[in-house]
Amino acid sequence: AIFEAIQAMLAGDAGRPLAGRRAIVTAGPTVEPIDPVRFLSNHSSGRQGYAIAEALGRLGAEVILVSGPTALAAPAGVTRVNVQTARDMLAACEAALPADIAVCVAAVADWRPDGTGLSKIKKGDGPAPPLTLVENPDILATLSRSDRRPRLVIGFAAETNDVEAYAQAKLEKKGCDWIVANDVSQPGVMGGTENTVAIVSAQGIERWEKAP
Amino acid sequence: AIFEAIQAMLAGDAGRPLAGRRAIVTAGPTVEPIDPVRFLSNHSSGRQGYAIAEALGRLGAEVILVSGPTALAAPAGVTRVNVQTARDMLAACEAALPADIAVCVAAVADWRPDGTGLSKIKKGDGPAPPLTLVENPDILATLSRSDRRPRLVIGFAAETNDVEAYAQAKLEKKGCDWIVANDVSQPGVMGGTENTVAIVSAQGIERWEKAP
Repeated sequence: AIFEAIQAMLAGDAGRPLAGRRAIVTAGPTVEPIDPVRFLSNHSSGRQGYAIAEALGRLGAEVILVSGPTALAAPAGVTRVNVQTARDMLAACEAALPADIAVCVAAVADWRPDGTGLSKIKKGDGPAPPLTLVENPDILATLSRSDRRPRLVIGFAAETNDVEAYAQAKLEKKGCDWIVANDVSQPGVMGGTENTVAIVSAQGIERWEKAP
Repeated sequence: AIFEAIQAMLAGDAGRPLAGRRAIVTAGPTVEPIDPVRFLSNHSSGRQGYAIAEALGRLGAEVILVSGPTALAAPAGVTRVNVQTARDMLAACEAALPADIAVCVAAVADWRPDGTGLSKIKKGDGPAPPLTLVENPDILATLSRSDRRPRLVIGFAAETNDVEAYAQAKLEKKGCDWIVANDVSQPGVMGGTENTVAIVSAQGIERWEKAP
């Protein structure tokens, strides 16, 4: 603690360039209930979002981390808001506005089951019921087009093929400033601790190897 | 360790009534992939199955714990086999036969998506694709009717209503010896540390309050 205090004194505001700025970071999966027992979700450890939330906090920003269920502890100094569904996550993000920065790292489920059963569905002798899906709200696009739009809105893309082409298209479709494209076709990337990423913006593409 | 060694010496075989017996315990959820990113699953902490595996181990049994993804450490002295899908779980159980006891605690997904996409499905402008489901193998019924059937096969039921009637029907349908019925309609039971259970067998029904 003494060492950190000295570091902070030596660093001053120069070490905290985001002091006074407010950042929203989404992280982890969303969980979309089918019934009280079953759910749809995405693989996401939450590590990338938590690492970004922690880094923004260290740079001086006030960080609101809107997180689906993960096994991770909230980084020190970061305010975590726990959510389950995409709709919960959007509501928590909107409640955290206004903000200067929004970083949408969460693996939000694109679809949710159409209506949550009140009782557990029974396995019968007949064929399985088809699961009807409805589109979830698009958190990245909603924040990008909000009348309280953060100045910098960053989205993430997890793709298995044509990573950069999809990221470029997503940038235009969502209306955000940057897309960070993770190539999940490489083994061990999903849930792993290191990714190869490409940062796609209106200025072009920048590649980072082994991003956290 | 010395204390435990003394305990074990004092207890002798009387404290290890299951010495020489082999038990299979299934625990946790199964995870059924839709594509490389999305999956279907069930809420299950794995705590009940892990507690049972630990207790059987303490009673002297050789325990094979076949577990879906959980945040739990394997109990000491228990052999854990990690699986993802219901089909993996059945294969691991069959590989662990012959056994004297099978305790099927896992929250196995009744259905899985019909065919895993090789690329992540894209969210388009049209309606969401319906998710076609196919029935998963029934691990409890398969073990109960195996030609290498364990002498004691125990199933679990998580129900929201008519708990005991369903448990009685499940007992007959699956061919197991006992059904332990957890009433999940009580708040805080799913993922919680204490359950009210009813043990249903051919001999009738026995209620236990606050089972682990």
